[in-house]
Amino acid sequence: MPTIRLKPKAEARAIRHGFPWVFANEVVTDRRTRAIAPGTFAQLEEHDGRALGLVTVNPASKIIGRMMDRNPEAQIDQAWIAAKITHALAMRTALYDTPHYRLVHAEADGLPGVVIDRFGDVAVIQPNAAWAEVNFDLIAGALADVTSVATIIRNGSGRARSLEGLPEVTELARGTLDGPVPVPMNGATYMADVLGGQKTGLFFDQRPNHAFAAKLAKGGTMLDVFAHVGGFALAALAGGATQALAVDSSAPALALAEAGGKASGMGDRFETLQGDAFDMLQKLADEGRRFDTVICDPPAFAPNKPALDAGLRAYERVARGAAALVAPGGYLGLCSCSHAADLTSFRNACARGIGRAGRRGVILHTGSAGPDHPQLPQLAESGYLKAVFFRLD
Amino acid sequence: MPTIRLKPKAEARAIRHGFPWVFANEVVTDRRTRAIAPGTFAQLEEHDGRALGLVTVNPASKIIGRMMDRNPEAQIDQAWIAAKITHALAMRTALYDTPHYRLVHAEADGLPGVVIDRFGDVAVIQPNAAWAEVNFDLIAGALADVTSVATIIRNGSGRARSLEGLPEVTELARGTLDGPVPVPMNGATYMADVLGGQKTGLFFDQRPNHAFAAKLAKGGTMLDVFAHVGGFALAALAGGATQALAVDSSAPALALAEAGGKASGMGDRFETLQGDAFDMLQKLADEGRRFDTVICDPPAFAPNKPALDAGLRAYERVARGAAALVAPGGYLGLCSCSHAADLTSFRNACARGIGRAGRRGVILHTGSAGPDHPQLPQLAESGYLKAVFFRLD
Repeated sequence: MPTIRLKPKAEARAIRHGFPWVFANEVVTDRRTRAIAPGTFAQLEEHDGRALGLVTVNPASKIIGRMMDRNPEAQIDQAWIAAKITHALAMRTALYDTPHYRLVHAEADGLPGVVIDRFGDVAVIQPNAAWAEVNFDLIAGALADVTSVATIIRNGSGRARSLEGLPEVTELARGTLDGPVPVPMNGATYMADVLGGQKTGLFFDQRPNHAFAAKLAKGGTMLDVFAHVGGFALAALAGGATQALAVDSSAPALALAEAGGKASGMGDRFETLQGDAFDMLQKLADEGRRFDTVICDPPAFAPNKPALDAGLRAYERVARGAAALVAPGGYLGLCSCSHAADLTSFRNACARGIGRAGRRGVILHTGSAGPDHPQLPQLAESGYLKAVFFRLD
Repeated sequence: MPTIRLKPKAEARAIRHGFPWVFANEVVTDRRTRAIAPGTFAQLEEHDGRALGLVTVNPASKIIGRMMDRNPEAQIDQAWIAAKITHALAMRTALYDTPHYRLVHAEADGLPGVVIDRFGDVAVIQPNAAWAEVNFDLIAGALADVTSVATIIRNGSGRARSLEGLPEVTELARGTLDGPVPVPMNGATYMADVLGGQKTGLFFDQRPNHAFAAKLAKGGTMLDVFAHVGGFALAALAGGATQALAVDSSAPALALAEAGGKASGMGDRFETLQGDAFDMLQKLADEGRRFDTVICDPPAFAPNKPALDAGLRAYERVARGAAALVAPGGYLGLCSCSHAADLTSFRNACARGIGRAGRRGVILHTGSAGPDHPQLPQLAESGYLKAVFFRLD
């Protein structure tokens, strides 16, 4: 097994205390290191030769090493992976009534770079680190051993993979699949296109925020902008909203939303409107429409530092357009899944937008991803999802 | 009506955009200003004489002015106060099944410095600003007009009042009171001593965190340290925990917790232990006790900047002692109500303590105060309550 060694000034202490990554500029990179095949397991040593643990190496990534096991002698085999999944499963089983959740959330669940979303007996695996790409069959095998999952999608899309130098490929890896998968959540039924949809087909991270919005929306009307498959709208209707309108630019996403509305028995309480979100906000304003609760859950406008300023201006525009549609005394929920926009910047952008719409608001609640998206304390700053709920005057 | 005028360089723009306070060093303070009686209403002007609104003035406070109304002509009478309470009430009525909540949360509910906690037909008013002290009867009258509240406690305790130069006095202001008030919350019944207890008798702010902890604790044992009247323990038992032990140094608080346990029908599933929290953590460790979920909700160890370092060390000690008592794969919830300790500092102190106990953990959820504690966006940085929930290895 190869060895990689930290430079004398590297942050061995942080790694010893649980930081899970080794950056390329922290290790001695000779020709031998650069020749290591992506996904190879290696011993990580301090500059003086003391063992720090077993890492997986990817010379093609800025994160050259990811800690697999503090025990440098660990064997990374199917049983080792199954033990991690078992530990992750115990928490989800305790917290969720049905087997629909993010089962494995990468580093925080002990499987670096691996995301597994579970939809009952169907699961989507995102092998977003080279070791997982190489050992995909072991991961799929362990998942099938530990759970009742029979159908497994290998989802090789997204920015994380390109940073690791991995190709884009999504395919049915095990079992069979017969169209969208129904997913019960917050009293509604959602339809997830696990093979051809956005990300893994459903955004489990928003579940607690859907639930909070549903409480706000009870007894009134809701507008759900950037609705995808109807996340906020269907939860609101299930929670007692009188009427909900879902807006999205994607016709396939809205078709799934409509199928979800039908599966949830919402009848004509649920409507959809296809088009650009900014255009539709303007159109609804021109029509004089008002909603008791408005939610906007846009894509990441500020996915990285260079995009931050433009991203914050876009969030401000969303807030301005949405605030204008909120009935007096109503509620406005604004979400960001941008890593680069921290909570304070995002909240300020929202407050500016609300002010520019001529409204005033107070913050009732700030939500984040649910507990099936655990975080290492050492990476907790990167909590990407924010949902800020305002009450307007 | 007197006038106070901002200095040329004062932050008129922030105030125009909703910042609710005027600091003493921002206004022209001549002999006339200093002679204004605390609690007097005054016109606030920019340096050039443009009106900014109606403020209440307290020359004895660093916050010399608090915005009452953007309309400089507003009449602050019982009807004006009743309108604010009505607006606040609408949101609570929509979000809560029973009338037990913080009804007015100061600036964010339009009544600067005024806190009203409601326990059914009983309410506690904290007039923490001079204008509220002077106009207490108007506030009590408006509250009785708008709600079914018949018994009103005037609670004049706490740090906020001393900063305003107000005396400590707590008394029954209206109606009658016959011992502790039963409060239904998260499926349990709590007993609130609204006249002689800590703060207003109950900590409504922790309600969503009690609920989250109860989900974690289902089917297992819970230890609730700094338990007060049993906030986390009783919610956990109501949610399906098998057994809960509440630790607190206050015998009166634990007597209320026991009364709550009885009223909730918990029988011998609920136990209490009186003593210093650090001593009791050590005692339980010495006895080899382990709990599936451990929660620590200590008093503010870092109420202000000078106390920050010592406070963070105390939080670390709590985390270390508590982590040692968590069963393998169990949960640890650590809370801070310290204004001076921001989330990052507090989380890091917790992680250090967990590490020093020889444990590793991931963060499942970070909770804050519930929506009956709204925040102005301009003051949102001051979100004081943090509840960080870890799962330990």
